[in-house]
Amino acid sequence: MNIGILGTGMVGEALGTKFIQLGHNVKMGSRTANNEAAVKWTQAAGAKASQGTFADAAAFGAMVFICLKGATFLEVAKTLTPTVLMGKVLVDVSNPLDFSRGMPPSLSVCNTNSLGEEVQKAVPAARVVKTLNIVNAEVMVDPAKGGHPTMLVCGDDAEAKKAVAGLLSTMGWRDIIDLGGITEARGTEMLLPLWLNLFGLFGNANFGFKVVRG
Amino acid sequence: MNIGILGTGMVGEALGTKFIQLGHNVKMGSRTANNEAAVKWTQAAGAKASQGTFADAAAFGAMVFICLKGATFLEVAKTLTPTVLMGKVLVDVSNPLDFSRGMPPSLSVCNTNSLGEEVQKAVPAARVVKTLNIVNAEVMVDPAKGGHPTMLVCGDDAEAKKAVAGLLSTMGWRDIIDLGGITEARGTEMLLPLWLNLFGLFGNANFGFKVVRG
Repeated sequence: MNIGILGTGMVGEALGTKFIQLGHNVKMGSRTANNEAAVKWTQAAGAKASQGTFADAAAFGAMVFICLKGATFLEVAKTLTPTVLMGKVLVDVSNPLDFSRGMPPSLSVCNTNSLGEEVQKAVPAARVVKTLNIVNAEVMVDPAKGGHPTMLVCGDDAEAKKAVAGLLSTMGWRDIIDLGGITEARGTEMLLPLWLNLFGLFGNANFGFKVVRG
Repeated sequence: MNIGILGTGMVGEALGTKFIQLGHNVKMGSRTANNEAAVKWTQAAGAKASQGTFADAAAFGAMVFICLKGATFLEVAKTLTPTVLMGKVLVDVSNPLDFSRGMPPSLSVCNTNSLGEEVQKAVPAARVVKTLNIVNAEVMVDPAKGGHPTMLVCGDDAEAKKAVAGLLSTMGWRDIIDLGGITEARGTEMLLPLWLNLFGLFGNANFGFKVVRG
């Protein structure tokens, strides 16, 4: 499969590298076509890796991952041709973290709205799936590093969620729960304050949340 | 130990009954001294059970549990003599659920504040510990029913948290994490949207969240 990655940070790199290991072709997109981090990653990742602008990566992928800081995608979406993501599975891995008031960050949107919903509104023609936002990059691509937590998936398109869950399985995710529509992104994004709290306590990000049942 | 319970709902009843089984004396408090639910519970629970007003229960307990709906305690606190909870361990089991906008409920406070913090501000002389608010009443008193999830504890007083964790252990809680100060109540209360989502999916409340590590 061709996968587009929007963003050149830790999350984009980790997912891009994992997808290539799994046999996919990956184009990493950023504001400029010759972003330094993307060049470096592309050279290291081999023949199945390429780079380009956000628009290039969006056009390339059958599945496109949002790996941008905070609500950055909402700005990027305004620069894309409305049709470039039409019908595509758009996987939102981002969290609305707001560092403007200092540490710990708060959420720029929560409770009665979510970034996942805002992403779907920004590109109504895309099939948005929210997932992976509840663990750090290393655990995303190696769930064993987080003690095999539960992965949560939500979105309004059942087929899109099935496709994403299938990809997650190949990445090692064993316990995947489909929460329902994209409004359920609220609950997953609202896990972040607790995640940040535990990250501070443990001193590392090798953990996650497992839904257990009696 | 003498334990005061503020509230006569499902949570108050379940905790009160459990504490009596564990050998404690429990006074259940409500707006009026002869609340019908409290009378019924007291008669069923035996010699170690008693009832009274909120003030009576607060005065009785060495440890006092807030088992009231939403932010009700903030109103109740205004009716209490400021000294009645002085130095006492005040365990806040409540969640700021707001049903005024319909289902699912939203949180009346979150993100940059929490009900736990508001409770501590309302009774600064008390040692507030937030816990048990992340599972339903049945799982609170029988963690096996929820698949032995993690229990989260936070508050500004280390000794108070130790006392509460000790009581939780006797109730069957095996995995207890001290998150830090009362501001960490934000993260635990913000678990509620996900909890409500899963409750809807599963059709029962026999579940919880386990923090797993790699």
